[in-house]
Amino acid sequence: MGSLSIHPVLGVGEVSPGEDVSQILIDALEANGPPLEEKDVLVVTHKIVSKAEGRIVELDSDSPDAHRHLVESEAAGVIRRRGNLVIAQTRHGFICANAGVDRSNAGPGRAVLLPLDPDRSANRIRLRVGRHFGCEVAVIISDTFGRPWRRGLTDIAIGVAGMEPINDLRGETDAHGMVLHVTQVAIADEISAAADLVMQKSSGIPAAIVRGVDWRPGTSGATSMVRSDEDDLFR
Amino acid sequence: MGSLSIHPVLGVGEVSPGEDVSQILIDALEANGPPLEEKDVLVVTHKIVSKAEGRIVELDSDSPDAHRHLVESEAAGVIRRRGNLVIAQTRHGFICANAGVDRSNAGPGRAVLLPLDPDRSANRIRLRVGRHFGCEVAVIISDTFGRPWRRGLTDIAIGVAGMEPINDLRGETDAHGMVLHVTQVAIADEISAAADLVMQKSSGIPAAIVRGVDWRPGTSGATSMVRSDEDDLFR
Repeated sequence: MGSLSIHPVLGVGEVSPGEDVSQILIDALEANGPPLEEKDVLVVTHKIVSKAEGRIVELDSDSPDAHRHLVESEAAGVIRRRGNLVIAQTRHGFICANAGVDRSNAGPGRAVLLPLDPDRSANRIRLRVGRHFGCEVAVIISDTFGRPWRRGLTDIAIGVAGMEPINDLRGETDAHGMVLHVTQVAIADEISAAADLVMQKSSGIPAAIVRGVDWRPGTSGATSMVRSDEDDLFR
Repeated sequence: MGSLSIHPVLGVGEVSPGEDVSQILIDALEANGPPLEEKDVLVVTHKIVSKAEGRIVELDSDSPDAHRHLVESEAAGVIRRRGNLVIAQTRHGFICANAGVDRSNAGPGRAVLLPLDPDRSANRIRLRVGRHFGCEVAVIISDTFGRPWRRGLTDIAIGVAGMEPINDLRGETDAHGMVLHVTQVAIADEISAAADLVMQKSSGIPAAIVRGVDWRPGTSGATSMVRSDEDDLFR
């Protein structure tokens, strides 16, 4: 197995509703490099996708009430609530704080929502950038989630196109010839986390190229990563 | 912000109780490269550390009962139980399946347990490899955990030395000058996930170098990443 490299996509700048996020990414890659290569994974933070798709709302006020109403309108169900903290399931099935409503990097008095269909958004970008650079790539749309039991946040995949988000090793054997117990690697989440290492929250870098991952083509999308209700012990 | 690269550590081979895991890693890096550089993060899967430290047990039988007794002896508390699946808190505070008892890559009739003090193990490796290569590095000991709500597993940090495991951005501002809401990045977990991308479970590569991350020196260790009981909504 070879090495892997991760490259920030520089020069994207501010994105506004109605803009063509694929073209913005292509222009940034053409201006600042590197050009996409076969089997690259382009990781794009959801924020610029949401903004381009107009998934941004003006808040009537900065009050907790206005925020709460917005979260409730985005949530398909509330998992836990404590004070102003709401852990909710989104319409896509993802479970996260505030149903994905985010006020950082949104501008004053505004909030950014999740894309309506991040898998579809990812696929649209995949087709456009793949055609432009003449290669087969995968695209991940990432967001920053907390998790139970552990402090700190990590980036995970909320939209996936071109690759199977889970690397299924069931039936493969370990170095002793024993069948592997650890069999389903959430490779799209690991790639999202890796990409975040060159983005960091305050730096204004909303995309990165992850090069050298041996992913498998597929169409399952990020929603296939949602654990079903009956398989889950923590709802 | 620059690019990042991840390099598998090749040629480690099987590790047995009593062996010097730091020396094994140094020998592998000397033989196959690359040599460690200033600010590298060396990520080591816990399995070889546990084996070197003798944290490996022979099971009397392959029965579910033998497995269950072992899990219970390793657990400080059980969070959820369904059939043979036990989500337990380890003595270190980590919450994971089977309290970290792992039978893959252990050999037939055997199980590998977590290191007794992974932060201390990480620091021991950090001092040895840093002295050998004459540079300041960080060391992470990783394990593969599942998570609620999402299918698939990702690697996370159970031992951290030399770096702060959480990148605390509180007080920093976003591109609009707004104070960031996403303020604590679990950088050690993101580095562990990134390293797993060049390791993969069946390949027999138990370590990787992550080069180019802008980490902050610190001594908090991985146990500082455990969310306190009162801050947690999912126990």
